[in-house]
This record gives sequence, structure tokens and C-alpha cells, in this order.
Amino acid sequence: MKATVYNGNSSFSVIDKNIETPKDDEVRIKVAYTGVCGTDVHIYHGMMDKRVAIPQTIGHEMSGTIDAIGENVSGYSIGEKVVVRPLDDRLVKPSDKGYNHICAGLKFIGIDSPGSMQQYWNVPAFVLHKLKPETDLKLAALIEPLSVAVHDVKLSGLVPGETAVVLGGGPIGLLVALVAKNAGANVIISEVNETRIKKAAEFGLQAVNPTKTDIVELVREQTEGRLADVVFEVAGVQPALDIMTELAGIRGRIVMVAIHGEKKPVDLFKFFWKELKLIGARVYEKEDYEKAIALITANELPFEKMITDVQPLSNVQQVFESIDKNPSGLKVLMDCQL
Amino acid sequence: MKATVYNGNSSFSVIDKNIETPKDDEVRIKVAYTGVCGTDVHIYHGMMDKRVAIPQTIGHEMSGTIDAIGENVSGYSIGEKVVVRPLDDRLVKPSDKGYNHICAGLKFIGIDSPGSMQQYWNVPAFVLHKLKPETDLKLAALIEPLSVAVHDVKLSGLVPGETAVVLGGGPIGLLVALVAKNAGANVIISEVNETRIKKAAEFGLQAVNPTKTDIVELVREQTEGRLADVVFEVAGVQPALDIMTELAGIRGRIVMVAIHGEKKPVDLFKFFWKELKLIGARVYEKEDYEKAIALITANELPFEKMITDVQPLSNVQQVFESIDKNPSGLKVLMDCQL
Ligand SMILES: NC(=O)c1ccc[n+]([C@@H]2O[C@H](COP(=O)([O-])OP(=O)(O)OC[C@H]3O[C@@H](n4cnc5c(N)ncnc54)[C@H](O)[C@@H]3O)[C@@H](O)[C@H]2O)c1
Ligand SMILES: NC(=O)c1ccc[n+]([C@@H]2O[C@H](COP(=O)([O-])OP(=O)(O)OC[C@H]3O[C@@H](n4cnc5c(N)ncnc54)[C@H](O)[C@@H]3O)[C@@H](O)[C@H]2O)c1
Ligand SMILES: [Zn+2]
Ligand SMILES: [Zn+2]
Repeated sequence: MKATVYNGNSSFSVIDKNIETPKDDEVRIKVAYTGVCGTDVHIYHGMMDKRVAIPQTIGHEMSGTIDAIGENVSGYSIGEKVVVRPLDDRLVKPSDKGYNHICAGLKFIGIDSPGSMQQYWNVPAFVLHKLKPETDLKLAALIEPLSVAVHDVKLSGLVPGETAVVLGGGPIGLLVALVAKNAGANVIISEVNETRIKKAAEFGLQAVNPTKTDIVELVREQTEGRLADVVFEVAGVQPALDIMTELAGIRGRIVMVAIHGEKKPVDLFKFFWKELKLIGARVYEKEDYEKAIALITANELPFEKMITDVQPLSNVQQVFESIDKNPSGLKVLMDCQL
Repeated sequence: MKATVYNGNSSFSVIDKNIETPKDDEVRIKVAYTGVCGTDVHIYHGMMDKRVAIPQTIGHEMSGTIDAIGENVSGYSIGEKVVVRPLDDRLVKPSDKGYNHICAGLKFIGIDSPGSMQQYWNVPAFVLHKLKPETDLKLAALIEPLSVAVHDVKLSGLVPGETAVVLGGGPIGLLVALVAKNAGANVIISEVNETRIKKAAEFGLQAVNPTKTDIVELVREQTEGRLADVVFEVAGVQPALDIMTELAGIRGRIVMVAIHGEKKPVDLFKFFWKELKLIGARVYEKEDYEKAIALITANELPFEKMITDVQPLSNVQQVFESIDKNPSGLKVLMDCQL
């Protein structure tokens, strides 16, 4: 079978290797599609070389079908469509208080262990979620990032009729915006990249450029002074941190989705003054995956348009190089059988 | 009657003025005691001269009895013991979403309008809370800061058996610690001032100096690795901001009580990683006042020891000067009839 490996130094290779028999508690998946995630791009840029066991196959946003079933695994049949929730929580402890998805010993499959950028992939059965026979496998590769968005909106406590501002209209920001809108919110995206602003409009989403429009005033007008009930920080930049506390109204909730690698200045006075809440959000829980699967299977949101390119797995090197060259693209999938 | 006025420039004077008849919607209070708050000290230091209408009588942590009743006020009788919840929310708007205590148009009585550092004080009746005949008027001057603590613990969502760390063992931090302990939490105070550490111990509270003890390790040991369920930031300094995200365990809640005048670096990565929550907390709601009144009336907590000095109102200048000289003192009351 074909597998890709990250060799460090911004280099991938495509190798030929034997298809492995799944261990007793594993299944073998015939991988249909793998999406490229911002994290994969970070790995490609060498920013996670300490964590990745080079040479390693990466990838975690995938869909596929059951290809072989280990001894102790029941409830699955060959050919069944599945996705993987790439969280290995086997080291969970009581001190994690039942929050398995963020347990201190969490291993992320596709980063801390081999991923799905290969034709066949063996995984422990407990990470599987079943799809419906009618679920589209291309769209299903969006289930992982969509689950992030579902989790974020859940943690925000959003209720219909509330106003949500999404800072950052990248793949995650757009999915958060779609899920929030679907949950009944009035949604405004703040994005500086004009191509992505246009893309958001194609999705039926309101998007503005905060360097051109006074977004605080815009939100104030649209809410009769209430300002945002929820702000999602999905941009990961200081200007987003500066504006999030301005955009949130009294008792507003700010969901921190973005990953900030270092300490950053935050207006804590505004937290006190308006009794704001900051809510950290990381990956997803089981129920978020189920919700995302239902949304993808129903296919009533413009998920199709999220996929800006589909490339054969064997083009892996070019795929990563082209992502660097085109920062406006959204989600690139690799067809893992080609 | 005797009244004190702040004249700017760290100077107070004591003047003689006429006792005023309350307006139709007001009552006149014969003020028993007024506590000196950190905010009053800020005013004395000239840090709020833009907000205070100099020359002005300040003070808002008080107790007293009804002395005269305006035309349109009902339900009160002369001699009844009362405290004032010093929040004038008459400019509340629908965009405040019912959070009157932090409404955008809030005026703080005793800062934005005359306060209680005088013998008699006229206030609108809607700010009154009744005490019981048996409530001690000296302890009742602690109801305002105690309500802050009650509000903070309420917003933390603390449940019995949880571990709470209180950063800062000043008057507010100590009250937060007492209320949290009373709510069934295991409480640890972090404080750098040795006199205040001793004071905390006298209150039956565990207090440690984070410059001498590795408090993160201490909390880890005391919680079998869970770390703190709740952290109260009541110190207002950068080291507290640095350690709060270390002390909080998975899904821990951090209550921001301290007032940070400028943007400060915060470890947002930890918010993401452990799904922490930051909860801004400002003053109190009606129900917090009622809870504080019940606690003071029951008098089962060491409130008495919070009061480190009682001085006649006419000593106002010396009172503020001595507070500056003795940063270890906790609550100084002024007897407003002397
Ligand atoms: N919490 C989680 O579990 C989780 C999961 C996946 C991704 N993430 C994080 O979410 C963030 C977004 O991910 P992504 O893949 O969409 O990233 P991305 O970089 O594609 O998107 C960020 C977007 O923010 C925009 N932006 C830049 N400056 C801005 C500004 N001042 N105002 C508004 N927008 C601005 C950029 O143009 C870009 O489109 C990243 O920080 C990523 O690490 C978190
Ligand atoms: N949220 C509200 O509505 C509200 C109401 C009242 C007061 N406050 C704020 O609460 C804070 C505390 O008020 P206070 O009157 O108790 O103030 P305070 O200054 O008396 O208490 C702060 C304490 O923190 C201690 N400290 C300093 N550095 C420390 C460190 N590194 N670690 C641990 N402790 C440290 C100090 O020694 C001091 O005892 C202030 O910021 C005040 O403005 C907020
Ligand atoms: Zn991903
Ligand atoms: Zn006060």
C-alpha cells in the first residue's frame, strides 16, 4: 500500500509498505479522504518536530471504510463507513474529572502516533464513529474540524436569537459561524483576508473587514446596544484579543478557540466591568462528533464549498507547498486511494 | 451635623452642616459606622479625582438606622436598622439585559454621589436593605464587602468538596476565603504579607506565601493531582495572573475579582489546553446582599477579627494617613456619631 511520511525539514515522501493485520482491539480502515489541518501545516513547518516521531505518517481529518476487524472488536462490519475521533485517552486518570477529551495524558492520533495520510490505517476500535450508508465520504473528512466548531458553540451556551461574532474566517472560524447560525444566532465574521471575506459571503454569512469597518459600532447597531452575546476568538492574533473584550456586551461569553503559543496582553478590566466570561475550548467530546456526523449527513449547510481542492495522496509534497502559496484556500483534501 | 469632605490632594476636612429633610423617594439614615474601602483609599490618593465631585463626602461600606422617611416611601419605620446597597441603577436600559448591578449607566453611591462618611445621609429608598433588630451595627458595616465575596463565590459555581485557591489575603480575599470555606470548599490562601498570613491563620484559614512555598505543588498534593477547581484572583498583581492558570485544574474556573487598570499578559494557551474559564465579577446583586446580611446576623464566622480599628469620624484625616502607614491592617471603621 501507499503511505506518506513526514521526514522533517518540510519534506514528505510517499513510500510503499505492507498492509498490516489489525491487532486484537483494532480495525483496519481503508482511508477515503484526509483533510489537511492547520496543525499538519505546523508539522510541515517543523514547529512540532519534538512531538512527532520523524519519519512519521501524519493526518487526522479523515473518512473511510472498515477493511479488516481485530479479534476482540465487535459491532462493525467490513465496508461500513466510519470516521476516527483521533483522541487516545487510555491514560486518563481520576484527576481528569471525567473530561477524557482533555485528559492530562491525552495522545492525539496523527500527531503523537501514526495518522491517516496513507491508504490503510490501523486504529483502536474505541476511536471509531459510524457514518450512515448515505454519508458522503468527501464531506465526512470535514467531520473532525466540524466537531471542533460544534464543541465551541456548545461551550458558548449560545441560544437562538443571540448575536455571535466570529473573529477569523479560516476553516475553523467559518465552521463555527455556520454552526452558530444553524443554532439560531445572528452571526458576524471578522476577517482581514478579502478572498476569505468573499468566501464567507458565498456561504451566506455576513463578514466584515475590521481594518475597514468599525465592527464594534456595526455590532452595536445590529444589537440595539447590547453588543455581542458570544465572541469566538478563532484568529489567533493580538488584534483579535484586543477587540474581543470590546465586542462582548454585558455578561458576554468569549470562547477561546485559537491557540496562543505565548502569554498575550488581555483587557482584564473589561472582564471585571462587564462580567465577561472567557471559555477555553479544545477539540471535542463524543457527542460533538455525533452532532457533526448528523450535520454532514443531512448536508444542509454549504460544506461542499469548504473543500477548495482535492488532490491525490501521492501529491502530498505539492499539496503542502501549495497551501503555503495560497493562504486564501480553505480545506484541501487528499484522496487516499490515489 | 458633622460631615467629612474629601477636598482633593489627600486632604479631608470635617464640616458642620444642616441635617436635610429627605426628598419624597428618600430616607434619611443616621449613619452608625462606615468602613474604609480600598476604593476610598484610591480616592484619597487622588486617583479618582475625575470621577469624584470635589469637595465631596465619600464612603459606601456602612450601617445605620432610619432617621426620617420621605413622602412616597413606605415599609420602613424610624429606628429600623438598615444598610445601603450603593448601586444607583436608575439609568438601566434594555441593552443591560437585566444585569442592573453592572448596567452601563450605573452610578456608584459614595463615589459618583455623596457617601456615608457623615452623621446623617439621605439616600433613595430603593438602595436599602433591612437588617434584623439583633444585627450588630459594627459588623453590619462589613456587609458591603462581604456581599462582594458572596457574589464572587456564587459566580464561581463552587460546590461542597471543591478546592479553592484565593490569591491575595486582603480584606476582600479573606472574605472570599471565609465564604468559600463556609460553602464547603477546601480553601488555600496565597498571600505575600506575613502579617496577613498570620491573620488568615487566626481566622482558621490555611494561608501560604507563594514566594516561599511552591503553592502549585501544595495544591496538587492536597487534591491528588486535580489542582484547584476554583481560583479567585483578588491580589491584582502580575504574579497572581501568572500563577492562576497554573493552579487551576482541568475545567477549572478563575474568578477575576481584582481590578487591573491596564492590559496584562495572560496564558491563554492554558485556557485552551485545560478548558479553563475566566469569570469577571463586579460588586453584587440584591440576593448577594441578603445572603451577606444573613451571614453577618448569624455571626458564626470570625467577622469581628476583620475589624482592626474603630475611629471617630472626626479623625478622618488621621484614619487615611494611618491606613497608608499600616498596610497589614484589614478593615478600619469610622464611628459616624463621634
Ligand atoms: N481549540 C481547538 O481545539 C482548535 C482546533 C483547531 C484549530 N484551532 C485553532 O483555531 C485557530 C483557527 O484555525 P484555522 O485553521 O481556521 O486558522 P487560519 O489561520 O486559517 O484562520 C485564521 C484566520 O484569521 C484571520 N485573521 C488574521 N488577523 C485577523 C484579524 N485581526 N481579525 C480577524 N481575522 C483575522 C486570518 O486571515 C485567517 O483567515 C488557530 O489558532 C488554530 O490553532 C483550535
Ligand atoms: N470585583 C469587585 O467588585 C471588587 C470589589 C472590591 C475590591 N475589588 C478588588 O479586589 C482586589 C482586592 O481588594 P482588597 O481590598 O482586598 O485589596 P488589598 O490590596 O488589601 O489586597 C491584596 C492582597 O494581595 C496581596 N498580594 C500581593 N502580591 C501577591 C502575590 N504575588 N500573591 C498573593 N498575594 C499577593 C497583598 O499583600 C494584599 O494583601 C483589589 O484589586 C480591588 O480593587 C474588586
Ligand atoms: Zn485538525
Ligand atoms: Zn467598597
